[in-house]
Amino acid sequence: MTESNGVGLFISFEGIDGSGKSTQARLLADHLRAMGHDVVLTREPGGSPGAEEIRALVLQGDPDRWSAETELLLFTAARRDHLERLIRPALAEGKIVITDRFADSSRIYQGTRSGDLRDTVDKLHELMIGQEPDLTFLIDMDPETGLARAKGRGGDEERFEDFGADLQKLMRKGFLALAERAPDRFRVIDGGRDMVTVASEVAKLAEDALT
Amino acid sequence: MTESNGVGLFISFEGIDGSGKSTQARLLADHLRAMGHDVVLTREPGGSPGAEEIRALVLQGDPDRWSAETELLLFTAARRDHLERLIRPALAEGKIVITDRFADSSRIYQGTRSGDLRDTVDKLHELMIGQEPDLTFLIDMDPETGLARAKGRGGDEERFEDFGADLQKLMRKGFLALAERAPDRFRVIDGGRDMVTVASEVAKLAEDALT
Repeated sequence: MTESNGVGLFISFEGIDGSGKSTQARLLADHLRAMGHDVVLTREPGGSPGAEEIRALVLQGDPDRWSAETELLLFTAARRDHLERLIRPALAEGKIVITDRFADSSRIYQGTRSGDLRDTVDKLHELMIGQEPDLTFLIDMDPETGLARAKGRGGDEERFEDFGADLQKLMRKGFLALAERAPDRFRVIDGGRDMVTVASEVAKLAEDALT
Repeated sequence: MTESNGVGLFISFEGIDGSGKSTQARLLADHLRAMGHDVVLTREPGGSPGAEEIRALVLQGDPDRWSAETELLLFTAARRDHLERLIRPALAEGKIVITDRFADSSRIYQGTRSGDLRDTVDKLHELMIGQEPDLTFLIDMDPETGLARAKGRGGDEERFEDFGADLQKLMRKGFLALAERAPDRFRVIDGGRDMVTVASEVAKLAEDALT
């Protein structure tokens, strides 16, 4: 809670594509609202009007249109806007902010796409963002199951899901390694179970963090 | 020349608005082409298709639409694209690249808009760009004269020119301080003289660098 000066609570959901993290983020927002909390549900890349425009610029067109470094800079610009215009003001008003992806996704997606960028991702985060969530739910999932789910869903997330099983395995390992390095912040959730069981566990852990 | 591995020559033009740097960049390109050199004339922000799209995103709409930090990240993304897609390939082919503005403009414009960003501009440059021109012509100009010239010209540069005389004075000082810190790279040119006199001095100094 130190990050948000003791007001509000900043929660992120992370995981590979098809892990169910977006659904779980929404279910937690619904649950906490039903408990009477003031909740802002958001997502990255995007989340504020400016950040959504940057998202559109990155994701439209040829996937090789931007280098990994340029993409990282654009996503960091989007995150800075999201943080300044939506996340920090909401936390300052004592709200709970739930975001579907935050900086851990850059660590894994940009850091995995170009292995030697991993260190740059951290330095850039430290220089231009600096903030971590108070609590991060890593919805952990067997990549084969996750990939099948993601492909089944379709939609506008294909740019992120066009990775294949091997890369998904690498990313799962990456997320789990992040969680191991920051056990105070991360809660690793077995996403392979049914939706309601997962949602109940997430809700309980979030309530613990609020008390 | 170490920056470009001994091939090509990377020249930038810097200065406050209305200093005549764009005109001088064009005149030098014409002159060197007439001498038989292969010259790429470009500009920032922008210069490559992706960077021009980022430029449009930054410059359209309300000037306060982006914070100084987000703007800095977007311009750095544009610069990275410009460097990877246009500048470095041209230098690798032995061409002369002349750019109207480069990183020094970020040091002065973003660094001056938010005084405490000056150090961040340098760190971000070091992390994500790393390259300096071989030669930088600072077209130095009395701000009152420069401002009158810039206002007279109009065009699509108004976003950059909406600074007023006091800020222009601060920026002139900033550019001169940069030149003092890197005398090997900078050539400070008195831009208050007639166009042809200035162009002749620039041409002679560029020819010296090519031999």
